[in-house]
Amino acid sequence: MIDKNFFGELKKIKVSELAVICGFKKVGDGDFQIEGVSTLKHATRNELSFFGNKKYIADLRTTKAGAVIVPEANVADVPSGTIALVFPHAIIGHAKALNVLCPKETHLAHICATANVHKTAKIGADCYIADNVFIGENVEIGDDVVIGNNTVIEANCKIGSGSRIRNNVSISHSIIGKNAIINCGARIGESGFGIIPTGSGMVYVKQLGRVIIGDRVRIGSNTTIDRGSIEDTIIGNDTIIDNLVQIAHNVHIGERCIIVSQVGIAGSTKLGNDVVLAGQVGVAGHVEIGDGAIAAAKSGIASDIASKQIVGGIPAVDANLWRRQAAFLKMSVTRKKQK
Amino acid sequence: MIDKNFFGELKKIKVSELAVICGFKKVGDGDFQIEGVSTLKHATRNELSFFGNKKYIADLRTTKAGAVIVPEANVADVPSGTIALVFPHAIIGHAKALNVLCPKETHLAHICATANVHKTAKIGADCYIADNVFIGENVEIGDDVVIGNNTVIEANCKIGSGSRIRNNVSISHSIIGKNAIINCGARIGESGFGIIPTGSGMVYVKQLGRVIIGDRVRIGSNTTIDRGSIEDTIIGNDTIIDNLVQIAHNVHIGERCIIVSQVGIAGSTKLGNDVVLAGQVGVAGHVEIGDGAIAAAKSGIASDIASKQIVGGIPAVDANLWRRQAAFLKMSVTRKKQK
Amino acid sequence: MIDKNFFGELKKIKVSELAVICGFKKVGDGDFQIEGVSTLKHATRNELSFFGNKKYIADLRTTKAGAVIVPEANVADVPSGTIALVFPHAIIGHAKALNVLCPKETHLAHICATANVHKTAKIGADCYIADNVFIGENVEIGDDVVIGNNTVIEANCKIGSGSRIRNNVSISHSIIGKNAIINCGARIGESGFGIIPTGSGMVYVKQLGRVIIGDRVRIGSNTTIDRGSIEDTIIGNDTIIDNLVQIAHNVHIGERCIIVSQVGIAGSTKLGNDVVLAGQVGVAGHVEIGDGAIAAAKSGIASDIASKQIVGGIPAVDANLWRRQAAFLKMSVTRKKQK
Repeated sequence: MIDKNFFGELKKIKVSELAVICGFKKVGDGDFQIEGVSTLKHATRNELSFFGNKKYIADLRTTKAGAVIVPEANVADVPSGTIALVFPHAIIGHAKALNVLCPKETHLAHICATANVHKTAKIGADCYIADNVFIGENVEIGDDVVIGNNTVIEANCKIGSGSRIRNNVSISHSIIGKNAIINCGARIGESGFGIIPTGSGMVYVKQLGRVIIGDRVRIGSNTTIDRGSIEDTIIGNDTIIDNLVQIAHNVHIGERCIIVSQVGIAGSTKLGNDVVLAGQVGVAGHVEIGDGAIAAAKSGIASDIASKQIVGGIPAVDANLWRRQAAFLKMSVTRKKQK
Repeated sequence: MIDKNFFGELKKIKVSELAVICGFKKVGDGDFQIEGVSTLKHATRNELSFFGNKKYIADLRTTKAGAVIVPEANVADVPSGTIALVFPHAIIGHAKALNVLCPKETHLAHICATANVHKTAKIGADCYIADNVFIGENVEIGDDVVIGNNTVIEANCKIGSGSRIRNNVSISHSIIGKNAIINCGARIGESGFGIIPTGSGMVYVKQLGRVIIGDRVRIGSNTTIDRGSIEDTIIGNDTIIDNLVQIAHNVHIGERCIIVSQVGIAGSTKLGNDVVLAGQVGVAGHVEIGDGAIAAAKSGIASDIASKQIVGGIPAVDANLWRRQAAFLKMSVTRKKQK
Repeated sequence: MIDKNFFGELKKIKVSELAVICGFKKVGDGDFQIEGVSTLKHATRNELSFFGNKKYIADLRTTKAGAVIVPEANVADVPSGTIALVFPHAIIGHAKALNVLCPKETHLAHICATANVHKTAKIGADCYIADNVFIGENVEIGDDVVIGNNTVIEANCKIGSGSRIRNNVSISHSIIGKNAIINCGARIGESGFGIIPTGSGMVYVKQLGRVIIGDRVRIGSNTTIDRGSIEDTIIGNDTIIDNLVQIAHNVHIGERCIIVSQVGIAGSTKLGNDVVLAGQVGVAGHVEIGDGAIAAAKSGIASDIASKQIVGGIPAVDANLWRRQAAFLKMSVTRKKQK
């Protein structure tokens, strides 16, 4: 099901070879050259698939895939005629397989004539700077960086080596680490919401902090990250941020956090490492969230969350309590009706 | 109230002529040349208005409009001195009237010199390609397409005839149907949130699907639609999507769906036809929503929704149950206070 | 902590001089030249700080800052060795101090060669028009306006003097006042969600209104404001709108309102003056919200809100009721478990 126009030809490789390269245990006879990768439901005899979500157990048991990456516990669910490739975490196995099968993305080393690169900017080796890109005074771009069309990088920003900045992005007042991915339309470093009502009008507080983004951070499309007001706004290494997320001034996010789409984090809030905020969560300002805490989708977090705590609801409470609240409400109403 | 600078002069036409063209039943004597279109509250004797929302019944009864489009049931509410133009669904009548009264939008057939169109790209007849547009290798653009300033369409994408792609849009890995409207700042085809935490870091899963968008689809400003991971992300014909909506990888949306602003739909979720998700609804991943289902604003949908079911709340339950829950909560607290 | 690369050198000025200029009452001996501005926690002996949030009272009591702006009530909390600069509202004092200390932002008066400015457009004195900007027919730009890279301003729009339009912005069908700030990626004036399902397809209603934005309005990154359908969409003077906010067609927002990130306001809703909508609030269409009303974060407003009312919850109720509902739910579940 992979469209070769967009993604190129898969590498010609046999299942047995792939198993060796990726460390899969091959269960089942036979072998074939992998012609494609697809879902359990749509894969054909020459294709590879994977079992990454228990919801699709029926699809696994009836798959026509030639080979399937599965955890040990599900080998028995693989139908005869399909080779099982055993790996502890099937999606990670799938990711490894794709890294072998798919052609590596390459890019030209070139600065387009329509790009406006300031004479004081330093551009590393092997970069591609697309059409109509603006790169301001004293900007430093590392090696092997790709910057997409119509992207604007204002004065004094730094972009680490290996990073990919996509199209129509705006960056200012920011220091970005290595191997970062910043998708289309992200806005990084704009002035935050530093405005105070006085009764007769608004007072604007100059926003004098930066945005500091670690290595291997991924920032989704149209996400907005405001620069600090006086502290910096900080995103730790390996943290991934989805589309349409709002990160306000002075927010600190630790390492390896997962911030799902449409989350909003208000000013000066601090997240530890390995925090997960599911979709559309809102976090108030000046709150601290401990390492490894998890917030269910749509939670409204108004006060501190302890390390490893799991919360849900508006206002967010312990997830067990939240579930009991929902059950209580449902029961109360049902009972009431029966009377 | 229509600003002629922006929208041009209305066609010179009499109420009686309009009624014939649009199929309105004219009730009331008199006739006049329509000089403008306005709300019930602000319309004057030479203007046309319409009664599209019961909230404005008082405005209807006191309107100074020369003529009003109303359903049969409200003819008696039209004040004397105002002509009633009877049509079953007044807003649709209003839309028809505007199509007659307003000058048709036209565009030049021209490719601006600053556009970078790859030599292998195919551009249909009568297209307008604005300044600084990037059109990549092997892109195919149908006839009568308008592409706005600074928009980027990457390699191999297809845009069907009659489509309007507005300014500052980013499109990659996508096949878009005919007569689609894609408003400013939409991001279509970016890599989705295919990232798995391993405890020590993140594994990135290559995203190898596309975005397939049907005919007459409308996509709002700054909306993000990620390409599939291995399946495609699919939006059916006639579906309309508002501003700032997030559609994750592998989501399938049927035909004629209405997805209101700031909705988020997580990965691999499937919507049938004629589904309505009101503003700020969130839908978890791997969920199925049946044909004609409706979710109230701000619902959080965590599990499958049957065809034609109406739901509300977080987590979403049947809308009647949700309303009873809200009433129960209100009553419990009020009673408690009285004690 | 202020990065001089981005923000320049602070003005060389002594604490005693600053106090005179800003109207601070200086409490405590000593004086020094201000070398920087920082948080209570990080400020050093040569730096100025401020006490703007009661959460940080412990930081105030242990600060190493050379001087701190505080309200009268907290002078006793300022440690010995730190000068207290007394001002009623410390954050406003901080804003005033920054206006004195920071170099004024300046800009060239220049229209870049790559900008496409229509010959009929009027550009005021001392404007900077950046690369690849598009300015359409009959556009009027006041004096001292800065328009960032790749921004598009379509035909007949007006931008008042002193306004700052940042990078990658799209504006059409809009009249914008003086001294407005429009951050990167905002979309102003696009066609709204004027689409009616008919059962067999969609009818599109031409959107014939404008967006009218007052003086000193601030609009956040990637925010979307649709033009009116037949009325105008109106934003009053001094109103500030955060990032990723959705404002639908025909919405009227009064003066001095504060609309926090990710709020969505549906069509034809009217807000009075001094309304505050906290983060992620949703407001249904055709609702009226009175002067000075406040909605807690994540509220879902489905019906009219009286002047000065404070609401919370989904659906939004009086804030006291909402708090009691949350407490009742928590108690019911806890009690139930104890049985």
